[in-house]
Amino acid sequence: MSNEIPASVVAHLMQHDAFSQWLGIKIIEIKEGYSKIEMVLRQEMTNGFSVAHGGIIFSFADSALAFACNNRNNLSLALECNISFLKQVNVGDTLIAEATEIHNGKSTGVYSISITNQNQKQVALFKGTCFRTGKNLV
Amino acid sequence: MSNEIPASVVAHLMQHDAFSQWLGIKIIEIKEGYSKIEMVLRQEMTNGFSVAHGGIIFSFADSALAFACNNRNNLSLALECNISFLKQVNVGDTLIAEATEIHNGKSTGVYSISITNQNQKQVALFKGTCFRTGKNLV
Amino acid sequence: MSNEIPASVVAHLMQHDAFSQWLGIKIIEIKEGYSKIEMVLRQEMTNGFSVAHGGIIFSFADSALAFACNNRNNLSLALECNISFLKQVNVGDTLIAEATEIHNGKSTGVYSISITNQNQKQVALFKGTCFRTGKNLV
Amino acid sequence: MSNEIPASVVAHLMQHDAFSQWLGIKIIEIKEGYSKIEMVLRQEMTNGFSVAHGGIIFSFADSALAFACNNRNNLSLALECNISFLKQVNVGDTLIAEATEIHNGKSTGVYSISITNQNQKQVALFKGTCFRTGKNLV
Repeated sequence: MSNEIPASVVAHLMQHDAFSQWLGIKIIEIKEGYSKIEMVLRQEMTNGFSVAHGGIIFSFADSALAFACNNRNNLSLALECNISFLKQVNVGDTLIAEATEIHNGKSTGVYSISITNQNQKQVALFKGTCFRTGKNLV
Repeated sequence: MSNEIPASVVAHLMQHDAFSQWLGIKIIEIKEGYSKIEMVLRQEMTNGFSVAHGGIIFSFADSALAFACNNRNNLSLALECNISFLKQVNVGDTLIAEATEIHNGKSTGVYSISITNQNQKQVALFKGTCFRTGKNLV
Repeated sequence: MSNEIPASVVAHLMQHDAFSQWLGIKIIEIKEGYSKIEMVLRQEMTNGFSVAHGGIIFSFADSALAFACNNRNNLSLALECNISFLKQVNVGDTLIAEATEIHNGKSTGVYSISITNQNQKQVALFKGTCFRTGKNLV
Repeated sequence: MSNEIPASVVAHLMQHDAFSQWLGIKIIEIKEGYSKIEMVLRQEMTNGFSVAHGGIIFSFADSALAFACNNRNNLSLALECNISFLKQVNVGDTLIAEATEIHNGKSTGVYSISITNQNQKQVALFKGTCFRTGKNLV
């Protein structure tokens, strides 16, 4: 498979994904079962300690998961996701999420997503398990 | 301990938590090691499938975790969180998150957060582990 | 559904499950989507700190999961499991694992398993996600 | 730090770890914050489907975690562990677990453990979070 289908699936997803747009996510690279995306942390994304709300980091990784696990044009739903928070993220930090495919099963898939900041320091590690519905997205 | 300290800690947190404010979170009940909060899903919180972005559900639960695990005035940081997505959430749905304390250790804590919709159907189950720094918040 | 099928599925599983036999698991109660089992910690189950090896606690919970998620005679496979360790377990302790069904989907299921000791103290909390194959076990 | 302390900590742990001995674990390589170990699946380690009990795979990874996270001679306790099961393991299969350090904090650590079989196929992915007590082991 070329990367034409993965790219068009992600373009379709991103166009309809209101919250990923609010997050300011930019697509860097899409390949079959893979995604790499970027965002910048804004003040409205912080928590009561003035650093990134954990949910923002999770959301960013969850979008990377969606862009990786759906991109063979097989509509997939996240079943279980977990995240380890390693390092605080501050306003103005640029984050990169890279999703790699650990398992590509017929009915399920497992993805590992690493999130790093502009200094190449890992700030979180995310793992997601999805169910494949077999339906097309585009 | 009365509920005076927990309530004042959460009021302080909520006042400074820009993203929880963006989510529209309302505090329903706060007790020592416990929180119950509410929010309504808006269109800008949806993903490419026009249902709640998984990150929104996680963020909501993560705020409930923060309000429960910090409220003895012991500043606590989430180490690891996981979530199972059980049911789709649609625009206009009212969500309730209830955080209960599974373990209250000196250095760490474990919390289970159940998220339900306005029909009392569970839409997600979240578990969070935190580290207690021993510092005061207020 | 009566509890006849769940009980016969679990009897079949237990009869063929060599490691659950090694663990000394006893079935206490089986209902549709539910199991309650018991075991006693032996010296050969300890780790380098002379308390229960984490893998023993996990294994015990994982058997409770299998007995709960398969017992509608729908062969199910664990996809992702996580466990929080709350309290040490010592040689001679009697453990109870109780598996309750959080979600019973057509293709997947989610179960929460609480493990307590003989003093009714919770020693671990386990969550498991399974995939349902649709095949019969008995 | 040379690898002398890590090796002597793991030798001490392994000598006292009755269950890791029962599993037949062999140490392949130990470095600071790292471990690589091996075992062979025996019939008594199988579940009701005649493949490796999930708890055996978890236990093997959990031992790799212990050997990696304790080996700076800082006694560490697992708080939360999760595992994704990717591929069945059969009697006679030789498994390798490799633990790598994702985060080495003062009070906590995060480790990723990959488990592969004799055909270099990944059979499971495990993530563990530990709390560092600051006590010595040897």
